[in-house]
Amino acid sequence: MMRKLALSKVYRLIEPGPVVLLVTARRGTAGVMTMSWHMMMDFEPPLVGCVVSSANHSFAALQETGECVIAIPPANMAKTVVGIGNCSGRDVDKFDKFKLSTAPAGKVAPPLIEGCIANLECKVKDASMVQRHSLFVLEVIEAWSDTRQKTAKTLHHHGYGKFVVDGETIRFRSRMP
Amino acid sequence: MMRKLALSKVYRLIEPGPVVLLVTARRGTAGVMTMSWHMMMDFEPPLVGCVVSSANHSFAALQETGECVIAIPPANMAKTVVGIGNCSGRDVDKFDKFKLSTAPAGKVAPPLIEGCIANLECKVKDASMVQRHSLFVLEVIEAWSDTRQKTAKTLHHHGYGKFVVDGETIRFRSRMP
Repeated sequence: MMRKLALSKVYRLIEPGPVVLLVTARRGTAGVMTMSWHMMMDFEPPLVGCVVSSANHSFAALQETGECVIAIPPANMAKTVVGIGNCSGRDVDKFDKFKLSTAPAGKVAPPLIEGCIANLECKVKDASMVQRHSLFVLEVIEAWSDTRQKTAKTLHHHGYGKFVVDGETIRFRSRMP
Repeated sequence: MMRKLALSKVYRLIEPGPVVLLVTARRGTAGVMTMSWHMMMDFEPPLVGCVVSSANHSFAALQETGECVIAIPPANMAKTVVGIGNCSGRDVDKFDKFKLSTAPAGKVAPPLIEGCIANLECKVKDASMVQRHSLFVLEVIEAWSDTRQKTAKTLHHHGYGKFVVDGETIRFRSRMP
Protein backbone atom coordinates (compact mmCIF):
# COMPACT_ATOMS: atom_id res chain seq x y z
CA MET A 1 0.00 0.00 0.00
CA MET A 2 2.92 2.37 0.54
CA ARG A 3 4.71 2.93 -2.71
CA LYS A 4 7.75 5.03 -3.47
CA LEU A 5 6.97 8.53 -4.63
CA ALA A 6 9.24 10.43 -7.04
CA LEU A 7 11.19 13.05 -5.10
CA SER A 8 10.20 15.63 -7.72
CA LYS A 9 6.60 15.32 -6.50
CA VAL A 10 7.29 16.00 -2.83
CA TYR A 11 6.72 19.77 -3.15
CA ARG A 12 3.12 19.07 -4.16
CA LEU A 13 2.53 17.56 -0.71
CA ILE A 14 4.28 20.11 1.50
CA GLU A 15 3.61 23.37 -0.39
CA PRO A 16 -0.16 23.35 0.34
CA GLY A 17 0.60 23.74 4.05
CA PRO A 18 -0.83 20.59 5.64
CA VAL A 19 -0.53 19.80 9.31
CA VAL A 20 2.15 17.09 9.54
CA LEU A 21 3.55 14.69 12.09
CA LEU A 22 7.29 14.84 12.75
CA VAL A 23 8.69 11.46 13.75
CA THR A 24 12.09 11.10 15.39
CA ALA A 25 14.01 8.33 17.14
CA ARG A 26 16.58 8.62 19.89
CA ARG A 27 18.30 5.87 21.83
CA GLY A 28 15.94 3.33 20.34
CA THR A 29 12.75 5.21 21.25
CA ALA A 30 10.56 6.90 18.66
CA GLY A 31 8.88 10.25 19.26
CA VAL A 32 6.20 12.12 17.35
CA MET A 33 4.93 15.70 17.39
CA THR A 34 2.40 17.73 15.42
CA MET A 35 3.83 20.52 13.27
CA SER A 36 2.60 23.30 10.99
CA TRP A 37 5.65 25.56 10.79
CA HIS A 38 7.25 24.20 7.66
CA MET A 39 7.76 25.17 4.01
CA MET A 40 9.34 23.97 0.78
CA MET A 41 12.80 25.41 0.13
CA ASP A 42 13.85 23.60 -3.04
CA PHE A 43 12.28 21.24 -5.58
CA GLU A 44 14.82 18.46 -6.16
CA PRO A 45 16.41 17.22 -4.10
CA PRO A 46 13.45 18.42 -2.05
CA LEU A 47 14.43 20.66 0.82
CA VAL A 48 11.93 21.38 3.59
CA GLY A 49 12.47 24.06 6.21
CA CYS A 50 10.84 23.56 9.60
CA VAL A 51 10.87 25.29 12.96
CA VAL A 52 11.05 22.93 15.92
CA SER A 53 11.25 24.72 19.25
CA SER A 54 13.79 23.53 21.78
CA ALA A 55 10.79 23.30 24.14
CA ASN A 56 9.63 20.29 22.11
CA HIS A 57 10.81 16.85 23.23
CA SER A 58 11.58 16.07 19.56
CA PHE A 59 14.14 18.87 19.31
CA ALA A 60 16.98 16.95 20.97
CA ALA A 61 16.34 13.83 18.89
CA LEU A 62 16.31 15.81 15.66
CA GLN A 63 19.42 17.73 16.58
CA GLU A 64 21.40 14.71 17.82
CA THR A 65 20.45 12.19 15.14
CA GLY A 66 19.90 14.48 12.16
CA GLU A 67 17.05 12.27 10.98
CA CYS A 68 13.26 12.38 10.92
CA VAL A 69 10.17 11.31 9.04
CA ILE A 70 7.49 13.79 8.03
CA ALA A 71 4.13 12.02 7.89
CA ILE A 72 1.10 13.72 6.34
CA PRO A 73 -2.08 12.60 8.11
CA PRO A 74 -5.49 12.54 6.43
CA ALA A 75 -8.27 14.66 7.89
CA ASN A 76 -9.93 11.61 9.44
CA MET A 77 -6.93 11.39 11.80
CA ALA A 78 -7.70 14.89 13.14
CA LYS A 79 -8.49 13.79 16.69
CA THR A 80 -5.23 11.82 16.87
CA VAL A 81 -3.26 14.71 15.36
CA VAL A 82 -4.63 17.11 17.98
CA GLY A 83 -4.00 14.62 20.76
CA ILE A 84 -0.38 14.16 19.65
CA GLY A 85 0.03 17.95 19.63
CA ASN A 86 -1.35 18.34 23.13
CA CYS A 87 0.97 16.06 25.08
CA SER A 88 4.71 15.54 25.33
CA GLY A 89 6.86 12.48 24.73
CA ARG A 90 8.51 13.36 28.03
CA ASP A 91 5.39 12.18 29.85
CA VAL A 92 3.79 9.55 27.65
CA ASP A 93 4.49 6.99 24.90
CA LYS A 94 2.41 8.59 22.17
CA PHE A 95 2.64 5.58 19.86
CA ASP A 96 0.99 3.47 22.55
CA LYS A 97 -1.47 6.12 23.70
CA PHE A 98 -2.73 6.87 20.19
CA LYS A 99 -2.36 3.30 18.87
CA LEU A 100 -0.15 4.39 15.97
CA SER A 101 0.90 1.63 13.58
CA THR A 102 4.38 2.02 12.22
CA ALA A 103 6.51 0.50 9.50
CA PRO A 104 10.30 0.61 9.17
CA ALA A 105 11.69 3.42 7.04
CA GLY A 106 14.18 2.54 4.34
CA LYS A 107 16.99 5.01 4.99
CA VAL A 108 16.43 6.55 8.43
CA ALA A 109 15.87 5.18 11.93
CA PRO A 110 12.52 6.84 12.77
CA PRO A 111 9.53 4.78 11.58
CA LEU A 112 6.90 5.59 8.99
CA ILE A 113 3.35 6.06 10.28
CA GLU A 114 0.76 3.85 8.65
CA GLY A 115 -2.57 5.37 7.69
CA CYS A 116 -0.90 8.60 6.61
CA ILE A 117 -1.21 9.95 3.07
CA ALA A 118 2.55 10.14 2.66
CA ASN A 119 5.73 9.62 4.67
CA LEU A 120 8.92 11.52 3.83
CA GLU A 121 12.27 10.23 5.07
CA CYS A 122 14.51 13.20 5.85
CA LYS A 123 18.06 14.02 6.88
CA VAL A 124 19.05 17.36 8.37
CA LYS A 125 20.85 19.13 5.54
CA ASP A 126 21.67 22.43 7.27
CA ALA A 127 21.57 23.04 11.01
CA SER A 128 23.25 26.44 10.92
CA MET A 129 20.01 28.30 11.72
CA VAL A 130 18.98 26.06 14.62
CA GLN A 131 20.52 28.15 17.35
CA ARG A 132 19.14 31.47 16.14
CA HIS A 133 15.74 30.45 14.75
CA SER A 134 15.17 26.77 15.71
CA LEU A 135 15.12 26.26 11.93
CA PHE A 136 16.14 22.92 10.47
CA VAL A 137 16.67 22.53 6.73
CA LEU A 138 15.73 18.94 5.86
CA GLU A 139 16.48 17.02 2.69
CA VAL A 140 13.86 14.47 1.71
CA ILE A 141 15.82 11.39 0.68
CA GLU A 142 12.99 8.91 0.23
CA ALA A 143 9.24 9.43 -0.11
CA TRP A 144 6.29 7.06 0.24
CA SER A 145 2.64 7.57 -0.63
CA ASP A 146 -0.32 5.43 0.35
CA THR A 147 -1.94 4.26 -2.85
CA ARG A 148 -5.32 3.89 -1.10
CA GLN A 149 -5.40 7.58 -0.15
CA LYS A 150 -5.11 9.37 -3.47
CA THR A 151 -8.14 11.53 -2.76
CA ALA A 152 -7.61 11.94 0.99
CA LYS A 153 -7.92 15.47 2.37
CA THR A 154 -5.39 17.16 4.62
CA LEU A 155 -5.77 19.45 7.62
CA HIS A 156 -4.68 23.09 7.96
CA HIS A 157 -4.18 24.64 11.38
CA HIS A 158 -5.73 28.03 12.11
CA GLY A 159 -4.90 28.18 15.82
CA TYR A 160 -7.01 27.86 18.97
CA GLY A 161 -8.33 24.40 18.10
CA LYS A 162 -9.57 25.43 14.64
CA PHE A 163 -8.66 23.31 11.63
CA VAL A 164 -9.77 23.61 8.02
CA VAL A 165 -10.08 20.54 5.82
CA ASP A 166 -9.26 20.62 2.10
CA GLY A 167 -12.30 21.56 0.03
CA GLU A 168 -12.95 22.04 -3.66
CA THR A 169 -10.16 21.51 -6.19
CA ILE A 170 -9.72 24.01 -9.03
CA ARG A 171 -7.40 23.64 -11.97
CA PHE A 172 -5.64 26.04 -14.30
CA ARG A 173 -3.39 25.35 -17.25
CA SER A 174 0.08 24.81 -15.85
CA ARG A 175 3.21 26.44 -17.14
CA MET A 176 5.49 24.04 -15.28
CA PRO A 177 7.63 21.86 -17.58
CA MET B 1 -12.98 48.01 5.56
CA MET B 2 -9.34 47.28 6.38
CA ARG B 3 -8.87 47.30 10.11
CA LYS B 4 -5.73 46.73 12.13
CA LEU B 5 -5.24 43.16 13.24
CA ALA B 6 -3.40 42.28 16.47
CA LEU B 7 0.06 40.99 15.65
CA SER B 8 -0.55 38.00 17.94
CA LYS B 9 -3.17 36.78 15.44
CA VAL B 10 -0.94 36.81 12.38
CA TYR B 11 0.16 33.19 12.80
CA ARG B 12 -3.46 32.11 12.33
CA LEU B 13 -3.33 33.50 8.78
CA ILE B 14 0.05 32.21 7.63
CA GLU B 15 0.25 28.85 9.42
CA PRO B 16 -2.55 27.24 7.34
CA GLY B 17 -0.38 27.57 4.23
CA PRO B 18 -2.37 29.88 1.94
CA VAL B 19 -1.11 31.05 -1.41
CA VAL B 20 -0.06 34.68 -0.87
CA LEU B 21 0.96 37.68 -2.92
CA LEU B 22 4.32 39.28 -2.13
CA VAL B 23 4.31 43.00 -2.85
CA THR B 24 7.51 45.00 -3.13
CA ALA B 25 8.50 48.48 -4.29
CA ARG B 26 11.74 49.62 -5.84
CA ARG B 27 12.62 53.02 -7.24
CA GLY B 28 9.00 54.08 -6.98
CA THR B 29 7.59 51.08 -8.84
CA ALA B 30 5.63 48.36 -7.10
CA GLY B 31 5.96 44.68 -7.99
CA VAL B 32 3.92 41.66 -7.05
CA MET B 33 4.50 37.90 -7.21
CA THR B 34 2.63 34.77 -6.15
CA MET B 35 4.24 32.72 -3.38
CA SER B 36 3.63 29.49 -1.48
CA TRP B 37 7.03 28.82 0.05
CA HIS B 38 6.57 30.47 3.41
CA MET B 39 6.08 29.50 7.06
CA MET B 40 5.64 30.99 10.51
CA MET B 41 8.85 31.18 12.53
CA ASP B 42 7.71 32.98 15.69
CA PHE B 43 4.44 34.14 17.24
CA GLU B 44 5.05 37.70 18.45
CA PRO B 45 6.54 39.70 17.05
CA PRO B 46 5.42 37.49 14.16
CA LEU B 47 8.30 36.20 12.07
CA VAL B 48 7.62 34.69 8.64
CA GLY B 49 10.22 32.79 6.67
CA CYS B 50 9.93 32.81 2.89
CA VAL B 51 11.98 31.60 -0.05
CA VAL B 52 12.17 34.06 -2.95
CA SER B 53 14.37 32.85 -5.77
CA SER B 54 16.84 35.28 -7.28
CA ALA B 55 15.16 34.36 -10.58
CA ASN B 56 12.12 36.35 -9.43
CA HIS B 57 11.97 40.02 -10.33
CA SER B 58 10.88 40.72 -6.72
CA PHE B 59 14.12 39.35 -5.29
CA ALA B 60 16.20 42.49 -5.94
CA ALA B 61 13.50 44.77 -4.54
CA LEU B 62 13.17 42.72 -1.39
CA GLN B 63 16.91 42.49 -0.90
CA GLU B 64 17.60 46.16 -1.60
CA THR B 65 14.72 47.74 0.29
CA GLY B 66 14.19 45.18 3.06
CA GLU B 67 10.44 45.77 2.89
CA CYS B 68 7.39 43.97 1.56
CA VAL B 69 3.70 43.37 2.05
CA ILE B 70 2.25 39.87 2.21
CA ALA B 71 -1.32 39.94 0.94
CA ILE B 72 -3.60 36.93 1.40
CA PRO B 73 -6.04 36.68 -1.51
CA PRO B 74 -9.46 35.03 -1.23
CA ALA B 75 -10.24 32.03 -3.43
CA ASN B 76 -12.38 34.16 -5.76
CA MET B 77 -9.16 35.91 -6.84
CA ALA B 78 -7.71 32.57 -8.05
CA LYS B 79 -7.53 33.53 -11.72
CA THR B 80 -5.68 36.74 -10.86
CA VAL B 81 -3.36 34.91 -8.47
CA VAL B 82 -2.43 32.40 -11.18
CA GLY B 83 -2.00 35.17 -13.75
CA ILE B 84 0.33 37.08 -11.42
CA GLY B 85 2.35 33.90 -10.92
CA ASN B 86 2.70 33.25 -14.63
CA CYS B 87 4.29 36.50 -15.76
CA SER B 88 7.19 38.68 -14.67
CA GLY B 89 7.36 42.28 -13.58
CA ARG B 90 10.31 42.55 -15.94
CA ASP B 91 7.92 42.37 -18.87
CA VAL B 92 4.64 43.78 -17.68
CA ASP B 93 3.04 46.12 -15.12
CA LYS B 94 1.03 43.53 -13.23
CA PHE B 95 -0.98 46.11 -11.28
CA ASP B 96 -2.27 47.49 -14.56
CA LYS B 97 -2.66 44.14 -16.30
CA PHE B 98 -4.65 42.59 -13.44
CA LYS B 99 -6.43 45.79 -12.41
CA LEU B 100 -5.22 45.56 -8.82
CA SER B 101 -6.49 48.25 -6.47
CA THR B 102 -3.98 49.34 -3.89
CA ALA B 103 -3.93 51.40 -0.72
CA PRO B 104 -0.94 52.97 0.99
CA ALA B 105 0.66 50.90 3.73
CA GLY B 106 1.31 52.55 7.09
CA LYS B 107 4.92 51.65 7.75
CA VAL B 108 6.44 50.35 4.49
CA ALA B 109 6.68 51.64 0.93
CA PRO B 110 4.99 48.75 -0.94
CA PRO B 111 1.20 49.13 -1.13
CA LEU B 112 -1.54 46.99 0.35
CA ILE B 113 -3.74 45.12 -2.11
CA GLU B 114 -7.44 45.76 -1.76
CA GLY B 115 -9.82 42.84 -1.97
CA CYS B 116 -7.43 40.61 -0.06
CA ILE B 117 -8.41 38.94 3.22
CA ALA B 118 -5.40 40.42 4.99
CA ASN B 119 -2.29 42.49 4.30
CA LEU B 120 0.85 42.14 6.41
CA GLU B 121 3.46 44.91 6.39
CA CYS B 122 6.90 43.33 6.77
CA LYS B 123 10.54 44.29 7.23
CA VAL B 124 13.39 41.89 6.51
CA LYS B 125 14.60 40.84 9.95
CA ASP B 126 17.37 38.44 8.96
CA ALA B 127 18.96 38.20 5.51
CA SER B 128 21.81 35.91 6.53
CA MET B 129 20.30 32.89 4.76
CA VAL B 130 19.54 34.69 1.50
CA GLN B 131 22.74 33.76 -0.26
CA ARG B 132 22.64 30.07 0.64
CA HIS B 133 18.91 29.35 0.58
CA SER B 134 17.14 32.44 -0.86
CA LEU B 135 15.49 32.54 2.58
CA PHE B 136 14.29 35.83 4.00
CA VAL B 137 13.15 36.08 7.61
CA LEU B 138 10.46 38.77 7.73
CA GLU B 139 9.03 40.52 10.76
CA VAL B 140 5.40 41.54 10.47
CA ILE B 141 5.25 45.06 11.89
CA GLU B 142 1.64 45.95 11.02
CA ALA B 143 -1.29 43.79 9.98
CA TRP B 144 -4.62 44.60 8.35
CA SER B 145 -7.69 42.45 7.85
CA ASP B 146 -10.68 43.12 5.64
CA THR B 147 -13.73 43.14 7.91
CA ARG B 148 -15.98 42.13 5.01
CA GLN B 149 -14.06 38.89 4.44
CA LYS B 150 -14.24 37.13 7.78
CA THR B 151 -15.46 33.91 6.19
CA ALA B 152 -13.46 34.13 2.95
CA LYS B 153 -11.65 30.98 1.87
CA THR B 154 -7.99 30.79 0.88
CA LEU B 155 -6.16 28.87 -1.82
CA HIS B 156 -3.53 26.15 -1.40
CA HIS B 157 -1.14 25.31 -4.23
CA HIS B 158 -0.61 21.67 -5.16
CA GLY B 159 1.49 22.25 -8.28
CA TYR B 160 0.80 21.87 -11.99
CA GLY B 161 -2.13 24.26 -12.01
CA LYS B 162 -3.97 22.50 -9.18
CA PHE B 163 -5.30 24.50 -6.25
CA VAL B 164 -7.41 23.41 -3.30
CA VAL B 165 -9.85 25.81 -1.66
CA ASP B 166 -10.53 25.76 2.10
CA GLY B 167 -13.36 23.38 2.95
CA GLU B 168 -15.03 22.32 6.17
CA THR B 169 -13.93 23.81 9.50
CA ILE B 170 -13.52 21.52 12.50
CA ARG B 171 -12.89 22.62 16.07
CA PHE B 172 -11.26 21.05 19.07
CA ARG B 173 -10.85 22.40 22.57
CA SER B 174 -7.73 24.57 22.52
CA ARG B 175 -4.92 24.36 25.03
CA MET B 176 -3.44 27.69 23.94
CA PRO B 177 -3.51 30.35 26.68
